[in-house]
Amino acid sequence: MTNPTSVAVLGLGNMGTALAAAFLTAGHPTTVWNRTASKAEPLAAQGAAVAATVAEAIAAAEVTVICLSVYDTVLARLDGVDLHGKAIVNLTNGTPRQAREASAALTARGASYVDGGIMAIPEMIGQPSALLFYSGATETFQAHRELLDLLGPARFLGADPGLASLYDLALLSGMYGTFAGAFHAIALAGTEGVPAVEITELVVPWVTAMAAVLPSMAAEIDKGEFLGEESSLQVNKDGLDNILTASWQQGISADLLAPFHTLIARKLATTDGSVSVNSIMELLK
Amino acid sequence: MTNPTSVAVLGLGNMGTALAAAFLTAGHPTTVWNRTASKAEPLAAQGAAVAATVAEAIAAAEVTVICLSVYDTVLARLDGVDLHGKAIVNLTNGTPRQAREASAALTARGASYVDGGIMAIPEMIGQPSALLFYSGATETFQAHRELLDLLGPARFLGADPGLASLYDLALLSGMYGTFAGAFHAIALAGTEGVPAVEITELVVPWVTAMAAVLPSMAAEIDKGEFLGEESSLQVNKDGLDNILTASWQQGISADLLAPFHTLIARKLATTDGSVSVNSIMELLK
Ligand SMILES: NC(=O)c1ccc[n+]([C@@H]2O[C@H](COP(=O)([O-])OP(=O)(O)OC[C@H]3O[C@@H](n4cnc5c(N)ncnc54)[C@H](OP(=O)(O)O)[C@@H]3O)[C@@H](O)[C@H]2O)c1
Ligand SMILES: NC(=O)c1ccc[n+]([C@@H]2O[C@H](COP(=O)([O-])OP(=O)(O)OC[C@H]3O[C@@H](n4cnc5c(N)ncnc54)[C@H](OP(=O)(O)O)[C@@H]3O)[C@@H](O)[C@H]2O)c1
Repeated sequence: MTNPTSVAVLGLGNMGTALAAAFLTAGHPTTVWNRTASKAEPLAAQGAAVAATVAEAIAAAEVTVICLSVYDTVLARLDGVDLHGKAIVNLTNGTPRQAREASAALTARGASYVDGGIMAIPEMIGQPSALLFYSGATETFQAHRELLDLLGPARFLGADPGLASLYDLALLSGMYGTFAGAFHAIALAGTEGVPAVEITELVVPWVTAMAAVLPSMAAEIDKGEFLGEESSLQVNKDGLDNILTASWQQGISADLLAPFHTLIARKLATTDGSVSVNSIMELLK
Repeated sequence: MTNPTSVAVLGLGNMGTALAAAFLTAGHPTTVWNRTASKAEPLAAQGAAVAATVAEAIAAAEVTVICLSVYDTVLARLDGVDLHGKAIVNLTNGTPRQAREASAALTARGASYVDGGIMAIPEMIGQPSALLFYSGATETFQAHRELLDLLGPARFLGADPGLASLYDLALLSGMYGTFAGAFHAIALAGTEGVPAVEITELVVPWVTAMAAVLPSMAAEIDKGEFLGEESSLQVNKDGLDNILTASWQQGISADLLAPFHTLIARKLATTDGSVSVNSIMELLK
C-alpha cells in the first residue's frame, strides 16, 4: 500500500475548512494555511499541520488545494513561491479567462495546474450530492482523482483550464435565477402576510416540477424550433404582465423579474405570439 | 346516484382544451365555447356540446369554468349575460386586484364566484402533479370540489377571491426565476459550443438541490436573522461579479441576472459582508 497523498489547503473560510476536514477525515496528511491564523485551530485539533506561510504549506505537500475568495488573491499569495513540480488545484470561483490566465502563469513557473468549480455548499462536501468540475492538466487530475473524489464526485471536463469555470458559472446562474424567483415569490406573498416558509413550501415542489421541463426546452433551443404548443410566448407575456402589475400594486419591487419581461416584450415585437418562450434565447446571444 | 354536474368551459386555447377534455373524460355533460369556433371540433368529437354564444354556454351548465387570456376579455365576454344563480370558476391568470374586482362585479350580478390559478402546463391537467389554487365563494367551491379535483389536486385558500391569484403569481415568479437562470446558463455555456441539452442535464439536478435549500432560507427570512454561516453575502457578490464579467467577456447579455447582483451590491454598501444572501429580502419590500 502506498502512503496517502499529502495535501495542503490554502484558505480556511466556510468552504476551505470543509475541504480540509474531508481530507483529514480520510487520513491524508494535511497542512493548512489561512491569512487569519485562528481559523486553523479547529483543524489543528483534528490533526492538521498549520503552516505559517503559503510557501511552507506548498512545500509540505504533493497537492495544494486553493480556496480563497477571488483569483487576484490567489495570484498575489502565490507570488514568489516556488511551485516547481507542484500540483495546484484551484477551487476558487472565477471566470474562464481568469482560469486560463492563472493556468498559463503558474504552468510557466513549473506547476501543473488544475482548475475546479465546487457545486455544493460547505455542508454537502464529502457527500454524493456534491459535484465538483475540474479541467486543465489531465494527468495531474487523473493522478489525484481519488483524493479529489473525497470532496464529492469529480467530473473532469477536458484539458482547457477554462471549462470548469464556464460550467461552474453556468450552474451558479441557474441557482441565482432560482433564488431570485423564490425571493420575488416570498416578497409578493409577504404583502398579504403569508410567511416565507409557507409560500416556499409550495414554491419548492413547483420549481422542481418546472425544472424537470427544462430538458425538453433545451432540446427545442438546440433545434432552434420554437413551438408554443403547451404555452405560447403571448401567454407568458400576459403572465409576466400580471406579476409585474401585481408587484407594483402590492408595493414591492419588480426588479428581479423585469428583465425577463423585457426580453419577452422585445421578442413579441418582431414575432407572432404563438411561438414558445424559448424563442427569447435568440436575444441573449 | 346523482347525475354528474353539467359544466361549461369558455376558452379553448391550449389550457381550456385540456380542462374541457378532463371533464369529458370523467363523463360530465360539457358545453364548450370559443371565439374561434373551429377549436371546438376535437372536443365535439369527444362528446362536447358546442355553444354558439357565451350566454348559451352559461345557460346550459351548473358550473362555468373560464380560461381566457386575460381578465379584460373575461369581463367583456360576460357583459350582458345572465349570471343569476350560476357558479363561475375563473381560471384565467390575473392579479389579486383583478380577481377581487371580478368577484365583486359578478357577485353583484347574482353569480357565485370562485377564482383560481392553475399550477400546471396543459399536459399535466388531470394528473396528481398538477396543483390548482382556489379562493372566493367557499360554499360554491365545496359543492363542486369533486368536479374541480378532476383537473388536478384542488387547494382552497380562503374566502378572499384575491388569494388564489396571489399564490399563483408567487409560484409563477419562482418558475420565471428558474427559467431565467437556466436560459442564462444555456447562453453562457453556449459561448463555448456546449449544447443546451448538455448543460441543462447538469443544471436540473443542481437547481433541484439548491431549491431544497430554500425552506431553510425562508425560515431565516421569517426570523429576520441573516447568518452567513454556509455562504456569506460577500461570497455571493464575488460569484455574481464573476458571472457578469464572464458574460461580458464571452459576449452574451447579463441582463437576466444583473438585478440580483445590484441588490447584493446595494446591501453590501450598508452591511458587513458576513451576513447571508437572504438579507437582500429587506430591499425588495
Ligand atoms: N460557501 C459556499 O457555499 C461556496 C460554494 C461553492 C464555492 N465557493 C467558493 O469557495 C471560495 C471560498 O468561499 P468561502 O465561502 O470559503 O468564503 P469565506 O468564508 O469568505 O472565506 C474566504 C477565504 O479567503 C481568504 N481571503 C480573502 N481575502 C484574502 C486576502 N486578501 N489574502 C488572503 N486570504 C484572503 C479568507 O481569509 P481570512 O479568513 O483571513 O479572511 C478566507 O480564507 C470562493 O471562491 C467561493 O465562491 C463557496
Ligand atoms: N398554457 C399554459 O401552460 C398555462 C398554464 C397555467 C395557466 N394558464 C392560463 O390559462 C389561460 C389561457 O392560456 P392558454 O395557454 O390556453 O392560452 P391560448 O392558447 O393563447 O388561448 C387563449 C384563449 O383566449 C381566447 N381569447 C383571447 N382573446 C380573446 C378575445 N378578445 N375574445 C375572446 N376570446 C379570446 C382565445 O380564443 P381564440 O382561440 O379565438 O384565439 C383562446 O381561447 C391564461 O390566463 C394562462 O395564463 C396557461
